[in-house]
Amino acid sequence: MFITFEGIEGSGKTTQAKLLYQWLIDSGKEALFTREPGGTPAAEEIREFILTEREEPFPENAELFLYMAARSFHVENFIKPALENGTTVISDRFSDATIAYQGFGRGIPVEKIEYLNSIATKGLKPNITFLIDIPVEEGLRRIKKRKLDRIEKEAVEFHQRVREGYLQIAKREPDRVVVIDGRKKVEEIFEIIKTTIERKADAV
Amino acid sequence: MFITFEGIEGSGKTTQAKLLYQWLIDSGKEALFTREPGGTPAAEEIREFILTEREEPFPENAELFLYMAARSFHVENFIKPALENGTTVISDRFSDATIAYQGFGRGIPVEKIEYLNSIATKGLKPNITFLIDIPVEEGLRRIKKRKLDRIEKEAVEFHQRVREGYLQIAKREPDRVVVIDGRKKVEEIFEIIKTTIERKADAV
Repeated sequence: MFITFEGIEGSGKTTQAKLLYQWLIDSGKEALFTREPGGTPAAEEIREFILTEREEPFPENAELFLYMAARSFHVENFIKPALENGTTVISDRFSDATIAYQGFGRGIPVEKIEYLNSIATKGLKPNITFLIDIPVEEGLRRIKKRKLDRIEKEAVEFHQRVREGYLQIAKREPDRVVVIDGRKKVEEIFEIIKTTIERKADAV
Repeated sequence: MFITFEGIEGSGKTTQAKLLYQWLIDSGKEALFTREPGGTPAAEEIREFILTEREEPFPENAELFLYMAARSFHVENFIKPALENGTTVISDRFSDATIAYQGFGRGIPVEKIEYLNSIATKGLKPNITFLIDIPVEEGLRRIKKRKLDRIEKEAVEFHQRVREGYLQIAKREPDRVVVIDGRKKVEEIFEIIKTTIERKADAV
């Protein structure tokens, strides 16, 4: 199974993704935890490049292509081989993030991103996506103590559009995307995730 | 004017591009010399990444996206501002190279690359492109003494397809692409280039 976690900054998605990974391992399952952008040495180098602030302006199309390049490394050299091996892959972000951030956030046409995603993923889609949804102010409040990267530093309105984008993706693909209220307690959220996974596994 | 030089490894295109740049400068013209991949600090970092050999396999789509990301930086932060300033820009390689190398060389569909090129260049096309054409064996013989990068090390058949690709581009766009036999003497080639530029400038 290929399971992804999505959500805005401070939603708690990374915490949940790691809890799920640990739970699967503790249950004796083969599982791998990974993240985007990143997941392989080359893709992590690209992540570093994307998130670094530099003097040179960063064209939005350049950003888009770099996310796609990182995704291509990740899919071909990590996710696909693991899935073919029967390993469950849990990724902290995947292709929905580009639709939400570069599409809804930056205003790049969604169809364009979907076309590029189809090249980068070679058609690979997650079996389940957990969208941990949280109001922007609450999310940004939670990450205040962190040293923020280039994307996290965007204006509140940017993150607002990203959140909206995620919710629209969920509306369009309700069978794949499970929306969970990120204001719930960590344990409550994790219970919902476990139940969803067990139900999905039974259905297979 | 935006002038590009294309050709396979060892064709002599870089020599000619630099001769033209020097000639324009000596004639008191505003001109800039640049190259792809590269041309800005960020794009040069991406160039370094693309041409470095690494243990991790390099998916052809990742390579394609990285060329496009570098091109996007180059166009937006270097070429377009210079052209808007009335400066002539001479580039050692540009978007035709991706059609020839990744399209004809690696077998990625040309329409796909053209679509990505249109995003990366935002529709910018060279006014003149000089294709310095040379047989592959001759080109490879000339670069034998260099330390070869990841792309230069490809098989002879790869470079053969690239050469064919370039010639097809020239056939499709005869008004823009001027093919010159790279086996001629450096001075002879440069005479043809100068004459072409002068004729083009008169026509404007």
